[in-house]
Amino acid sequence: MSTAASLASFDRMWADLGPVGRVASGGYRRFVWTREDAALREWFAGEAAARGLDLVEDRVGNQWAWWWDGPGTVDDAVRAGHTGVAIGSHLDSVPDGGAFDGPLGVVSSFAAVDALRASGVVPGRPIAVTHFIDEEGARFGIACAGSRVLTGALDADRARALTDGDGVTYADAFAAAGRDPQALGRDEETLARVGCFVELHVEQGRALVDLGAPVAVASDIWPHGRWRFDFPGEANHAGTTRLEDRKDAMLGYADLVLAARAGAAERGCVATVGKVAVTPGGINAIPSHVTGWLDTRGTDEGQVRALVDDLETRVQQHGATVTRESWTPTTRFDTDLADRLRRVLGSTDELSVPVLGTGAGHDAGILSGAGIPTAMLFVRNPTGISHNPVEHAETQDCHAGVEALAACLTDLVADQP
Amino acid sequence: MSTAASLASFDRMWADLGPVGRVASGGYRRFVWTREDAALREWFAGEAAARGLDLVEDRVGNQWAWWWDGPGTVDDAVRAGHTGVAIGSHLDSVPDGGAFDGPLGVVSSFAAVDALRASGVVPGRPIAVTHFIDEEGARFGIACAGSRVLTGALDADRARALTDGDGVTYADAFAAAGRDPQALGRDEETLARVGCFVELHVEQGRALVDLGAPVAVASDIWPHGRWRFDFPGEANHAGTTRLEDRKDAMLGYADLVLAARAGAAERGCVATVGKVAVTPGGINAIPSHVTGWLDTRGTDEGQVRALVDDLETRVQQHGATVTRESWTPTTRFDTDLADRLRRVLGSTDELSVPVLGTGAGHDAGILSGAGIPTAMLFVRNPTGISHNPVEHAETQDCHAGVEALAACLTDLVADQP
Repeated sequence: MSTAASLASFDRMWADLGPVGRVASGGYRRFVWTREDAALREWFAGEAAARGLDLVEDRVGNQWAWWWDGPGTVDDAVRAGHTGVAIGSHLDSVPDGGAFDGPLGVVSSFAAVDALRASGVVPGRPIAVTHFIDEEGARFGIACAGSRVLTGALDADRARALTDGDGVTYADAFAAAGRDPQALGRDEETLARVGCFVELHVEQGRALVDLGAPVAVASDIWPHGRWRFDFPGEANHAGTTRLEDRKDAMLGYADLVLAARAGAAERGCVATVGKVAVTPGGINAIPSHVTGWLDTRGTDEGQVRALVDDLETRVQQHGATVTRESWTPTTRFDTDLADRLRRVLGSTDELSVPVLGTGAGHDAGILSGAGIPTAMLFVRNPTGISHNPVEHAETQDCHAGVEALAACLTDLVADQP
Repeated sequence: MSTAASLASFDRMWADLGPVGRVASGGYRRFVWTREDAALREWFAGEAAARGLDLVEDRVGNQWAWWWDGPGTVDDAVRAGHTGVAIGSHLDSVPDGGAFDGPLGVVSSFAAVDALRASGVVPGRPIAVTHFIDEEGARFGIACAGSRVLTGALDADRARALTDGDGVTYADAFAAAGRDPQALGRDEETLARVGCFVELHVEQGRALVDLGAPVAVASDIWPHGRWRFDFPGEANHAGTTRLEDRKDAMLGYADLVLAARAGAAERGCVATVGKVAVTPGGINAIPSHVTGWLDTRGTDEGQVRALVDDLETRVQQHGATVTRESWTPTTRFDTDLADRLRRVLGSTDELSVPVLGTGAGHDAGILSGAGIPTAMLFVRNPTGISHNPVEHAETQDCHAGVEALAACLTDLVADQP
């Protein structure tokens, strides 16, 4: 396969995306339905147009750039049994996130299309490059919101009612971006087109460094969830209120933070309290309300659930209420598809193309949960650091990712089901 | 003294101020150099104008409404040895603060002027009703900023460089409000006019309830200060980063919150962590930086200092840096002035006009620290709750406060030094 052109295309796209939503920290703030998000959508539309791909936006706002030279339309092909092969990822970021988490998969997908074309591949099935919106959930608090609403894993009414830190509802943000909030919901038409999905993503750990391999295939996503803990207190003067007369909501919150960490260590999970909101939030006012968000995951679903149960019991002494905002059980990716990709990638043993589980949620996990055969490729991360401005992948590893994705795609579209 | 008219005037002013800066919680958000602040300043100017008082703004933006019928100007009177008697307080609030903390003193001061006029008092010294700006420091983090800059207790360069939560400097906010930031600084001309200061304030505790008295005279303000604790961490993915690889800034913060409370209990002080800022602040990102603000006070200066020392030592294990943002030692109000006011108020023993210390800082404390004879009157608070939308004082106690302040003022302006 001729890949030089596709790798040059990768480098050009990567350079184009670099400045979009970049902030002083050197990281990114790319949140759904913002000006930065609009710039990313326009970039995606431009790349689709430059390749003559047919751009379709689903009911949720996810973008699909279709390559199908016929006969007939994509839907004709689907009806004839030739369902589409979707490849892609997301473009949004956590606050001050890195450049690779998400965009690497989208850019690599366009570059893979270029590679197939340079090689003269004539796809036997439609191909879509996909941009899932709002994967990080940084603005409205629900991760993978784009794929969740698409598949019905997140109810449209619940999505519309989500609010951001300024009190703006998802429905209002969606309407302000020129979309119809009433159209939000599971999109059968789109889902029917997708025969399988492959998401390439930067690794968010150091396993590939230790294994000495540039690319891995995913086995599963750990069970993971988010819980909101609300601690009540009573606002009062920080100087004049005796300790014994106080109801200070911050104390229960601090207890949660330390108990979550200790419990996670005990149960072999990970737990993070990365976001907190304090009312009224004045230096000289006793907090009347503190909300903390717990993110916890682990290889063992029972241990993750037990950790949260422990914490729920513990915070009762502080009068706290606990709300589950999301929960995703263990997601096992399609074994046949994973084995096929590993064969395509020339795996001779476990080590040449490693198989990795991950603690990170992904749109691929949501699609897999909706019954779509799904796989993931991970690209080596030299430090393992992610969700941080210094997140990085070496260019040669990114290029290896493009080549791996192109090889997998070539194999999948040769398939005549 | 005829007070019916002045009490009606109090009620009218109280009703006029009610809606300004009120928020959904039922409390107030009145922060310096905002639209709400401008409305409060305009209200003050209107009340001054309605009484024919001479409105002067000092270099800092504090408002002074002078009543002096001559001979000569206020400054002529001062040069002749008849320094002014200032009465007043502040109009700003903590986030979601109550209606009484601050405004009760300003409204009572105008009503006291009305009472003197209704009684035909001809002042032998100039009288000023004073509105100190930014007492709570809710926007820029330094309490009593108006009186501190006025007296030089806060350096003008330091004041100009303060930033609010949006990164706006005090200098820029001051300029945007139409003032010259270069004019900020100790205002000798204003200070020279003030012979003594009396601040009436709602009590921020329950001592007067227990003592069965509507009004007290202050003895002292406890030593108090604010410290900023900065905890370093490393942003990383909340799902994929092993516990042992993490540098989670939230853990040190939580340890501070619990240690501050335990240490305060041990040392007989109070300590509060009411404000926190987290970077990046995403649910699925390990915090790379957490800043917490500690407010601590107590009757014993040594114990307060020792508590902060203990905490500074403790947070070294988390790599934290500690910055003192403000510190005010014990402030003892002028004993002669306090005794005089208690005699005026008909004190026959300790209980009829109680003498109270307080853990709250006040502009009166700053003026006292600058060598101006200063006193405070406290008005009973039935619940003791303050810095909270439900903060309250009964109307009859407010009226008793106006009468007490008018009586004190009458006595003070009869004085011919």
